[in-house]
Amino acid sequence: MKTLVIVAHPQLDSSATEAFFKTAARQADNVTWHELTIPFDVVHEQQLLHSANRIILQFPMYWYSAPAILKQWLDEAWTTTLTTNRLVKGHELGIVVTVAHPAQAFMPGASQQFTIAELLRPYQALAHATGMKYLPPLPVYQFAQQSDEQRQLLFIRYQQYLTAKKFQHFSDRTNWFAEQLTAKLDQTTDPLQQAKMAQLLTLLTDQQDELTDLQASIGWLREREDD
Amino acid sequence: MKTLVIVAHPQLDSSATEAFFKTAARQADNVTWHELTIPFDVVHEQQLLHSANRIILQFPMYWYSAPAILKQWLDEAWTTTLTTNRLVKGHELGIVVTVAHPAQAFMPGASQQFTIAELLRPYQALAHATGMKYLPPLPVYQFAQQSDEQRQLLFIRYQQYLTAKKFQHFSDRTNWFAEQLTAKLDQTTDPLQQAKMAQLLTLLTDQQDELTDLQASIGWLREREDD
Repeated sequence: MKTLVIVAHPQLDSSATEAFFKTAARQADNVTWHELTIPFDVVHEQQLLHSANRIILQFPMYWYSAPAILKQWLDEAWTTTLTTNRLVKGHELGIVVTVAHPAQAFMPGASQQFTIAELLRPYQALAHATGMKYLPPLPVYQFAQQSDEQRQLLFIRYQQYLTAKKFQHFSDRTNWFAEQLTAKLDQTTDPLQQAKMAQLLTLLTDQQDELTDLQASIGWLREREDD
Repeated sequence: MKTLVIVAHPQLDSSATEAFFKTAARQADNVTWHELTIPFDVVHEQQLLHSANRIILQFPMYWYSAPAILKQWLDEAWTTTLTTNRLVKGHELGIVVTVAHPAQAFMPGASQQFTIAELLRPYQALAHATGMKYLPPLPVYQFAQQSDEQRQLLFIRYQQYLTAKKFQHFSDRTNWFAEQLTAKLDQTTDPLQQAKMAQLLTLLTDQQDELTDLQASIGWLREREDD
């Protein structure tokens, strides 16, 4: 699977958030990190979009939507050629949006009044109109205030969002980790590292197997209760 | 009341829709028609915003939101100075959005999947965040296909949206018409025209009085039913 990250940020060079994500994206396989700059080469943009299976729109939230440059790119590059030739039909559309307010502010009655999902409706409508599969967005709240631990989790969560075939279920994430470990194992030559990774991989797989067994047992018990 | 119409259209000169609205706006009192062009003079834009009681964002819908130029204007002119000094607090925010699809397309399950109200959430959130009063938007569907009769109605509906103190109730619209007629009556010197207008004004006022009486009677009857 190929992923294209469309990065729309007016002060990209001074953004610590985007630098963080760039590092994470660079360390992932089959990810193209594409920073928007004006003017656009429309044909090139459409080729990029066509060749990627997963397209991520990534931006800081300015006045409840993307910065103007992303809209300009949509207005200019998402032409009737793109829609008529179905260049993105069947592709996935993901959104990574960084916001300055905390998660609990995005709720009716709270300071921001609307949920992130509601505010992103125009992108969901875009996906619908062009035959794309809309992924659950990945909102990143108050990056500047996050602890090192939170950032480590975000680093992995972000890589999964970019590259995991599925990422909504717990088992999807385990599989993604197992894949990553297997790939690393193949590249490692240090025997000690190899042993450690192999052990971790076995542990991970065993745990997942046990979890699957447990889930099956619970399902079976529930069915009996319904009798 | 002063109204400021912010017009965001990349091909303004060739837009028959905007030419139509421009004529309507020019014939209304206390309306400033402001076409956005780059670059913006931020201080001037903020002065305009501050001096208007009603601010209308007017644009064709491109990919489910305003064209990039409106977003650029928001990103650049709606600065922290504007919010800190509460330059638009208490003002009204209206949206006139022209769309290429019919009204019934904007619904869950229909081709556009979301309602216009949902798609415009970012502007509603903007109004909320800056302490403005969000007016019910005025969507204009398929202007190019409208008949002369439909356009005449739209012409008046649009002028009301720009200048009527209230416009949601039937009586608000009658009052607006009465005000317009009174103003015209003062300017007219032709006695025949004057007589016609005076007659129309009386008719309009009488009808509204009768309607108010009827509504009162219905209310009274309903109260008795509840006993």
